[in-house]
Amino acid sequence: MRNLDAYEDYKVDSQQLARALAGLPGDYPAPPDGYPAPYGVVGYGEAWWPAELAHLWIPRLMSEGGTQFVLQGGLDLGAAGGAAAAAEASGARVVRVGFGGDVDVTIEPHPLSPYRYLRFLQEATGESEAGTRVDRALQTLAAGLKPEVPTEDNPAKFFAWNLVERVPVWVVAERYVWLAQALQQTFARLAGSLSIAPPPASLEFFITAMESRHEQGDPLAAVVVGDDERTRLAVEILESRVDTVMEIPEPPASGLIPEMVAAWYFVAWASYYLAILYGRDPADSRVLNRLREEA
Amino acid sequence: MRNLDAYEDYKVDSQQLARALAGLPGDYPAPPDGYPAPYGVVGYGEAWWPAELAHLWIPRLMSEGGTQFVLQGGLDLGAAGGAAAAAEASGARVVRVGFGGDVDVTIEPHPLSPYRYLRFLQEATGESEAGTRVDRALQTLAAGLKPEVPTEDNPAKFFAWNLVERVPVWVVAERYVWLAQALQQTFARLAGSLSIAPPPASLEFFITAMESRHEQGDPLAAVVVGDDERTRLAVEILESRVDTVMEIPEPPASGLIPEMVAAWYFVAWASYYLAILYGRDPADSRVLNRLREEA
Repeated sequence: MRNLDAYEDYKVDSQQLARALAGLPGDYPAPPDGYPAPYGVVGYGEAWWPAELAHLWIPRLMSEGGTQFVLQGGLDLGAAGGAAAAAEASGARVVRVGFGGDVDVTIEPHPLSPYRYLRFLQEATGESEAGTRVDRALQTLAAGLKPEVPTEDNPAKFFAWNLVERVPVWVVAERYVWLAQALQQTFARLAGSLSIAPPPASLEFFITAMESRHEQGDPLAAVVVGDDERTRLAVEILESRVDTVMEIPEPPASGLIPEMVAAWYFVAWASYYLAILYGRDPADSRVLNRLREEA
Repeated sequence: MRNLDAYEDYKVDSQQLARALAGLPGDYPAPPDGYPAPYGVVGYGEAWWPAELAHLWIPRLMSEGGTQFVLQGGLDLGAAGGAAAAAEASGARVVRVGFGGDVDVTIEPHPLSPYRYLRFLQEATGESEAGTRVDRALQTLAAGLKPEVPTEDNPAKFFAWNLVERVPVWVVAERYVWLAQALQQTFARLAGSLSIAPPPASLEFFITAMESRHEQGDPLAAVVVGDDERTRLAVEILESRVDTVMEIPEPPASGLIPEMVAAWYFVAWASYYLAILYGRDPADSRVLNRLREEA
């Protein structure tokens, strides 16, 4: 097994993703001034989660006279283009953000792009105060999670070691909408590994899903984000059913979106380190790049 | 291993769930006449999926003068009661459906209750024509899937055999909203087993999630529902990454909701047979019943 404190073991990281992770806070396209309100936002491909987050303050479709943001995150089989055309036909001002044909604001395909879409939207729609809180939390985290911080002081490296050959089960507080799926997506993209996001009746799922094959199959690791009645009951249920229960450290952030993005950023670092432990390049594979051109 | 064509192997089925499955079409509470439109519906616990289905024709919250349906499916930590109280305070007529305190229409906790909530809502809100199509599809399926039909003629038994000691990965057509999660939930409840519902950027997930540990861990079975560009690309990607690819037979139904409910009913039968193969009682466990009283 590799050593997360040895420089040479990071050579598999062909795209220097550690540098992109450490430098992520503040790394997003600044919007030009003056998109007219009211706003609407739809998102596709790797931009699906930032669109869901934005739905906490922007609806899907704008009302008359406003701006419709279409986040083109790829792999959408033409849906983003269709959405943009429909909005234009209805007389909206359409702003296409992402990559592929005809974008107004470019965000390249990247495992960390959800942050960039979100921060662009926050700045473009008058939510820069919340955006500043996101960045402050991520900067604080980056200082403690980067590769230079040795394993004994680095909770993301510790997490990665605990996830080796285990399948994470994401357990998130009730208020964190879509976070389990976002963690499942980023863990797959960076660590190249499977994990389980539960369906909406998650407590029922945790009780029932391990009954037939308890203690068979891959060992599971419950990864808990946030502390509420639901996560406390989930931990009680899961303690006897999984190999280990791990809690994501409380985020250095306040507010729903800063808390969620901080948890996502922590899991991105842990996923990155798990890739290093598996000797896998965390950059996108050729297969994924090829599919992106087709779909 | 047990035999799905031997009467004695069904003795673990303490609640005669096979009878409930075969008799499901038509088994729902008939609404009294005259709930005033417009309608709204929110759903909790085991009623989360019927509420999502109903959102294809009913919004979450009713406008003034209408009826607010609150589906009390349990395990909601007080949320259903809060929603009902809030709707009442706003002057709405509230109809509470499900179990627990103060229900107007009773639907007992049951692995098959999503059908009952859905059919009640269809009849109560002028959608009985679609409901009739649901029932016709389920009746057709029941005739071919019940225990009396031997394995060689019974595709649900065949599915169950193919899922033994494998982890299903649900691959559903783009138009089938929330179906992967509904199948994950029902498979856990009846078969007591884990399965994987992908996050929204599912094609990216299928490419990336098996890279590090390809051919390690539990063998996976891709289970495909529906035929569109997305499922065809997913099957191309998954063919070299999973143990087997299985397609749910085309449903004897037309229309979005009848197709989805038919697929769910097929998976419920397959999950039931898998429980029998594992020698597990498919009825709810004591632990689940106890949690339901607490939460």
